[in-house]
Amino acid sequence: MTDAGDEPPAETDAEWPVDLAGVTETVVTTRGPNELWNAAALGVFAGADEANAATATTWGNTRTRRNFHREGEGYVQFVDDPITFVNAALTIDEHDDPVLEHAAAWTRVAVERIDSGTENGTEWEQWRLEPLETTIKRETVPTISRGFGAVIEATVATSRLGVAGYDDAELRDRLAFFESVVERAGSPREQAALERVREHAEW
Amino acid sequence: MTDAGDEPPAETDAEWPVDLAGVTETVVTTRGPNELWNAAALGVFAGADEANAATATTWGNTRTRRNFHREGEGYVQFVDDPITFVNAALTIDEHDDPVLEHAAAWTRVAVERIDSGTENGTEWEQWRLEPLETTIKRETVPTISRGFGAVIEATVATSRLGVAGYDDAELRDRLAFFESVVERAGSPREQAALERVREHAEW
Repeated sequence: MTDAGDEPPAETDAEWPVDLAGVTETVVTTRGPNELWNAAALGVFAGADEANAATATTWGNTRTRRNFHREGEGYVQFVDDPITFVNAALTIDEHDDPVLEHAAAWTRVAVERIDSGTENGTEWEQWRLEPLETTIKRETVPTISRGFGAVIEATVATSRLGVAGYDDAELRDRLAFFESVVERAGSPREQAALERVREHAEW
Repeated sequence: MTDAGDEPPAETDAEWPVDLAGVTETVVTTRGPNELWNAAALGVFAGADEANAATATTWGNTRTRRNFHREGEGYVQFVDDPITFVNAALTIDEHDDPVLEHAAAWTRVAVERIDSGTENGTEWEQWRLEPLETTIKRETVPTISRGFGAVIEATVATSRLGVAGYDDAELRDRLAFFESVVERAGSPREQAALERVREHAEW
């Protein structure tokens, strides 16, 4: 070992595939004790303690939380397929491979718990995500789809049904509105995704 | 003129820059009698009478409707900047050039009125949009942003305040929800965009 500086640094300086700002909804895969990769929705918050790191919070004793603790890493995936998002958010969704078919890009991250607490009886843990490795598989012209946004919001609302601190009647009003948006503006795939949300929410 | 087929056809076969499905929210610029290009929100519906054509509906006697009638064309722009969308949707937004700074792609379209009617006292006209020329300026890794979606929904709700057939109290409940989403998940630019919506809605 020398300090002559002629070797590459041990740390990578991998970056995210996009400029993160605010919260970006992603799907994270983490390896479980059964060796399968569990896919779950994860909101990634830009701008933690340094330029490249981001943060995310796990709520309750989820597979993602347990796998983060055991493995110390995961694959953050940027997806634009509504069914992939709904499956990850609302079902137990396990895969042989860490990278999902509908990921336009993915970043392998090292995770470290930086905070924890309890809100309305649910234990949360906040994680620092440090990008280790990024691959961009596909880029597209960005489009605005109210139907896609409505599937995401309906998924979020459904995941909160029956959870302390949320009002079920208000959530179901919101679901009815987002359903009407998807009916009017949704693509066939967005409509199929909403159908899965509806089965899950039993509404 | 011959029918030997050795000349390119007069029709272009320009395509949209993305596979359209369901409704895609865009910003259209149309040339006005003052020679300026008026930007307005336009929902583009996939799949009209043939593969490449789409449709869109204008509501009321808008600049877009009048310019479509007079010019027979416009520039459909795919934007991912929330402030650009809000300005187009809620203000009189005129430009020297047809292509906006924040357009990731644009398609010049020929427009032809195919239907019209009246709903809740508002005259609507439905248009067939035929792509003539497309330019892609920029592609990105697609990301899911609840904050961005909330700005779009808040803009739509605001544009309906005071319009016959919509319930203002319900719209304002919805605005409060989308405001809370942008506060919690929005990027700085999404928060600035929502501030403009709020000024317009006076809420």
